[in-house]
Amino acid sequence: MTRSNPRFSPEVLLEFCSSCLKKAGLAATDAQVTSENLIFANLRGVDSHGIIRLKIYTDRIRAGGFNAQAKPFVVSEGPAVALIDGENGLGQVAGVTAMNLAIRKATDAGAAFTAVRNGNHFGAAAFYALKAIDHGLIGVAATNAGPTMAPTGGCEPRLGNNPVAITLPAGKHPPVVLDLATGAVAWGKIFVAQQEGRKIPETWALDKHGIPTDDPNAAADHGLIQPFGGYKGYGLSFLIDALTGLLSGGGFSTYVHTLYQKLESPANVAHSFAAIRIESFMPLPKFRERMDAMIDLMHTCAVASNGGRIYVPGEIEHETERRRRTEGIPLNPPLMAELGHLAMELDVPPLPEAR
Amino acid sequence: MTRSNPRFSPEVLLEFCSSCLKKAGLAATDAQVTSENLIFANLRGVDSHGIIRLKIYTDRIRAGGFNAQAKPFVVSEGPAVALIDGENGLGQVAGVTAMNLAIRKATDAGAAFTAVRNGNHFGAAAFYALKAIDHGLIGVAATNAGPTMAPTGGCEPRLGNNPVAITLPAGKHPPVVLDLATGAVAWGKIFVAQQEGRKIPETWALDKHGIPTDDPNAAADHGLIQPFGGYKGYGLSFLIDALTGLLSGGGFSTYVHTLYQKLESPANVAHSFAAIRIESFMPLPKFRERMDAMIDLMHTCAVASNGGRIYVPGEIEHETERRRRTEGIPLNPPLMAELGHLAMELDVPPLPEAR
Repeated sequence: MTRSNPRFSPEVLLEFCSSCLKKAGLAATDAQVTSENLIFANLRGVDSHGIIRLKIYTDRIRAGGFNAQAKPFVVSEGPAVALIDGENGLGQVAGVTAMNLAIRKATDAGAAFTAVRNGNHFGAAAFYALKAIDHGLIGVAATNAGPTMAPTGGCEPRLGNNPVAITLPAGKHPPVVLDLATGAVAWGKIFVAQQEGRKIPETWALDKHGIPTDDPNAAADHGLIQPFGGYKGYGLSFLIDALTGLLSGGGFSTYVHTLYQKLESPANVAHSFAAIRIESFMPLPKFRERMDAMIDLMHTCAVASNGGRIYVPGEIEHETERRRRTEGIPLNPPLMAELGHLAMELDVPPLPEAR
Repeated sequence: MTRSNPRFSPEVLLEFCSSCLKKAGLAATDAQVTSENLIFANLRGVDSHGIIRLKIYTDRIRAGGFNAQAKPFVVSEGPAVALIDGENGLGQVAGVTAMNLAIRKATDAGAAFTAVRNGNHFGAAAFYALKAIDHGLIGVAATNAGPTMAPTGGCEPRLGNNPVAITLPAGKHPPVVLDLATGAVAWGKIFVAQQEGRKIPETWALDKHGIPTDDPNAAADHGLIQPFGGYKGYGLSFLIDALTGLLSGGGFSTYVHTLYQKLESPANVAHSFAAIRIESFMPLPKFRERMDAMIDLMHTCAVASNGGRIYVPGEIEHETERRRRTEGIPLNPPLMAELGHLAMELDVPPLPEAR
């Protein structure tokens, strides 16, 4: 299926995204950073967080739910900490501001933690955390999201599928990038099972009564995603919400709205970022060597008798990125149609013929 | 079964532990802090990390695998960061030193991260993280451990059942305490299923070929525990190892040994700790109020039709602690016998008659 889809270079998609966002009302630098975040996700194969979000972003800007004029500002700070108000602008704009501040403070103090209130959907978390790598730091980025999961034992949405990304540099190997959402699965996979008439694992979803189900139709009928790994995933999701929304003074739990609700009003999303300076512990080249050794220990582990290959976190995405930089990023027909409409609406040049 | 077991007050068990550890060679203050950590776990119902570890601790001290004379020292530090060498002493001694340093630095800088190399088994992680609460901080504690899990797709041990604990203060409610190991289950539960001839969930263990199994006998025959939540749990375990052993210059992956291997030599365990100052973001009373509101949102969630009650992380352990402070801590017959032998070996007064 993917094979027949048209493919585009990251540069072409970046230009297109940026044009649309500028036309919708964003300043050029804000449009640029937001577009970089979206295309980063496509490059790494995380298409759910890529250019597929462009339309809803421009819709929210035009409806007033995103503040195109926002200028994130520091509310309070200390040597290793800062609170930033995102002024309900694009999550990417506040996110990069806050990650860069964490990087600057950690470079001086050895470690730092920053949080953003009045943020918004910020796309792929790994995008921010990876910025730390270039400065010899370990990076962390997390966000909350509108509630789509229940606490263990419940059957109403109280917590988002809140993700966290953590990145560590290596030497000969690509950086380690752990980027995980606290839900067992994305809704998309349940819809596919529904279309194909397949059962789903009992750990993916709850039916509307809060009972685990292997029937994708029961899940789709007012059911909920389960946290990954049962109560442990619930605990992690709760914790991310507390370290983003609760601590920053932003929205948490049911006070956060999803990207697709109430396009005209703030979603009360919050983020947090952290960085640790590696040279506070050992010379960076030594750390890189040790990380390579640890990765090698995973790669050389005997493989299960039903198995193929062992990966470390971020390795699959890194390989996808290498491939897509050469082969281009595939866009499926419904998305192509959506982007075509959007270009017309906004009166920007459409995507060129696919290569 | 538990009902008929003898019960002891935490004070009596603390005194007994401390006497044994002093007789084995520890200084009084080190014996005290180690004992507090063990009895903390028993009080909270985490008996796997309680006084059941006393014998192996004294065995390792006497065999030379724990350095009873160790004095943890700061190798290097910055305003928000420190590296500590535990000199292969008790994990609890280095752990409390490093957590206290993180608390001090976070109180000044707003956030801090400390790591320990040449540590050892440090018992329940929540014990350290909870110390932050009293200072108006959010606390984090993590450790690596001897490898007992494979990377996803593998069938050899490469990563420990590495735990992390994170604590946040509340107001009317007890503090939130998320304390989770990255394994799907403790071996003890598999042994119980084996004894009782019951099948186990396919997500708990691998057989010796690396294939998920529901047969506890296949798991026990050179099998491995699975990480919780599949590859996400593997990623978290990898990450904790990197942020403890790799970053501190200590042992990681197969360089770490378990508590019960090679009693006479260092196990190369490493830890890390972090703290965040809440008043850098908002007044502490406001945070407590908001945390209470978030907890209430979980408690008032509609319950699944097969369900009972919704808990927040740490709530069950808090209730157990309250109960055990009144009713005492139950010890089962094999453990009673072991502690009786140990008292004789070390020539310390045995536990008194149970109340």
